[in-house]
Amino acid sequence: MLKVGFSRASVSAAPTHRLLFNLGRVNLATPIGNRSKLIGSVMGSHSTASSQSPKLLFRQLFEKESSTYTYLLADVSHPDKPAVLIDPVDRTVDRDLSVVKELGLKLTYAMNTHVHADHVTGSGLIKSKVPEVKSVISKASGAKADVLIEHGDKIYFGDLFLETRATPGHTSGCVTYVTGDGPDQSQPKMAFTGDALLIRGCGRTDFQSGNSEQLYKSVHSQIFSLPKDTCIYPAHDYKGFTVSTVGEEMLYNPRLTKDEGTFKGIMANLNLAYPKMIDVAVPANLVCGYQDLIPKSS
Amino acid sequence: MLKVGFSRASVSAAPTHRLLFNLGRVNLATPIGNRSKLIGSVMGSHSTASSQSPKLLFRQLFEKESSTYTYLLADVSHPDKPAVLIDPVDRTVDRDLSVVKELGLKLTYAMNTHVHADHVTGSGLIKSKVPEVKSVISKASGAKADVLIEHGDKIYFGDLFLETRATPGHTSGCVTYVTGDGPDQSQPKMAFTGDALLIRGCGRTDFQSGNSEQLYKSVHSQIFSLPKDTCIYPAHDYKGFTVSTVGEEMLYNPRLTKDEGTFKGIMANLNLAYPKMIDVAVPANLVCGYQDLIPKSS
Repeated sequence: MLKVGFSRASVSAAPTHRLLFNLGRVNLATPIGNRSKLIGSVMGSHSTASSQSPKLLFRQLFEKESSTYTYLLADVSHPDKPAVLIDPVDRTVDRDLSVVKELGLKLTYAMNTHVHADHVTGSGLIKSKVPEVKSVISKASGAKADVLIEHGDKIYFGDLFLETRATPGHTSGCVTYVTGDGPDQSQPKMAFTGDALLIRGCGRTDFQSGNSEQLYKSVHSQIFSLPKDTCIYPAHDYKGFTVSTVGEEMLYNPRLTKDEGTFKGIMANLNLAYPKMIDVAVPANLVCGYQDLIPKSS
Repeated sequence: MLKVGFSRASVSAAPTHRLLFNLGRVNLATPIGNRSKLIGSVMGSHSTASSQSPKLLFRQLFEKESSTYTYLLADVSHPDKPAVLIDPVDRTVDRDLSVVKELGLKLTYAMNTHVHADHVTGSGLIKSKVPEVKSVISKASGAKADVLIEHGDKIYFGDLFLETRATPGHTSGCVTYVTGDGPDQSQPKMAFTGDALLIRGCGRTDFQSGNSEQLYKSVHSQIFSLPKDTCIYPAHDYKGFTVSTVGEEMLYNPRLTKDEGTFKGIMANLNLAYPKMIDVAVPANLVCGYQDLIPKSS
């Protein structure tokens, strides 16, 4: 008999009795062989939504119109509680800064994983409201920012840091930010993959110097090489998922589990509509959201 | 000089140099007095999105149309990996069951925090697809279900459990499910508050036997009495928040930080529209989603 059951007891008193249901096994295929080994390593001893560093405060925030996730990370063991935002959106900057203020954090970086085509980054608006904040984007993106990062660069906030991994393919300047190694850092690791790797999907490769062959190599060499229990936090989700793991995506991503040739075929035949925001978003994001500072053409 | 900075180094090599930015303090009010004490206890040594039990797998899932959060919890240390879903939505049942299958879990309970008025619960549809699953709702809700729970009841999945706290006020049958006490259980605790307590808000009290005085008492006696670092996971969010804490809501909830009289005045003057789904959702949810089994009136 399973210990799965239902116990009736007052909140403050010891349980007086426990009703146990003898439940049959549900009719779901059990992973076998390599699958069960991989799943075991994904789920063995941790919560996949957790970030188990005693120093790290972590918040996932959602912008519904563009289905964008913004991430707030802070070192709350540091006296200044330094914090970073990854992929802020212009429409939700006030919400994000309100949370930063309420939690007593000191925002230091507004980081972008890439030049987005579907929304305007919040990094420019954040800088206009909190001038000390530095905008961050990859040098390879061709965009302007206070800090232009490259593969291998580390962004510190207190004792914690994010390491930059170049993951081009959706755009030529895409990066993935990965939490660091060491006893103070998040365990399991967390990877902020932008549009390179989405949960059970990936970013399109048909504009902004997109290249499906490059994206395939990026994901396999830079993300799938991380520990299997690394939490995947993408820039978007359209189905209501909030987190996945490297191990899960290696098993169940419908595109990136395929061989490279099949993947390229899938990406070449998506027949997606032209992004409605691209002509506004890309020029603005090439200056990290400082769109109002661009001289208007006469 | 702060240690907040930016380091350029190859991924595999030791940092060769570190550029440090001497950042001024951002222009944000710092909480003082009781506020800073409370905030300290909220953020001291944990991630507020985490569920730090080595046994617990936790997933937050979102249904965009009704802005509903569904929660998946499982004991992955148990050989059967027993799992529960809290507040599943009919439209996203296939997604939820797919995740359950991919993670190798055995779904045992489809639990409802209350009779929802804005969407149809997924518990009936889940039972039609996985008959072993038991639907759960409070006895006080007046709804039908396989398991009718009351204040103090515990729902076990493996070695983990959720404790039921009666939190009426939004509806007369609302409950909050709280993770258990003990070394195996989540630390910090997690509270699934339904519509009783939302992040910086609360459920309306103008239909389904709603009562603002009762809601105020429920939140203060049953939720705000939990440890300050307890993570608040509501049934809905409309602004893109995913999690809060008891400590945060005690400081920043714009309604429930007020005295009872002011709260009742706020709730009496919301002037909200009649819920567009209520006439479909409530009858269906009173039978936990088995709406197709209700005899049609001739």
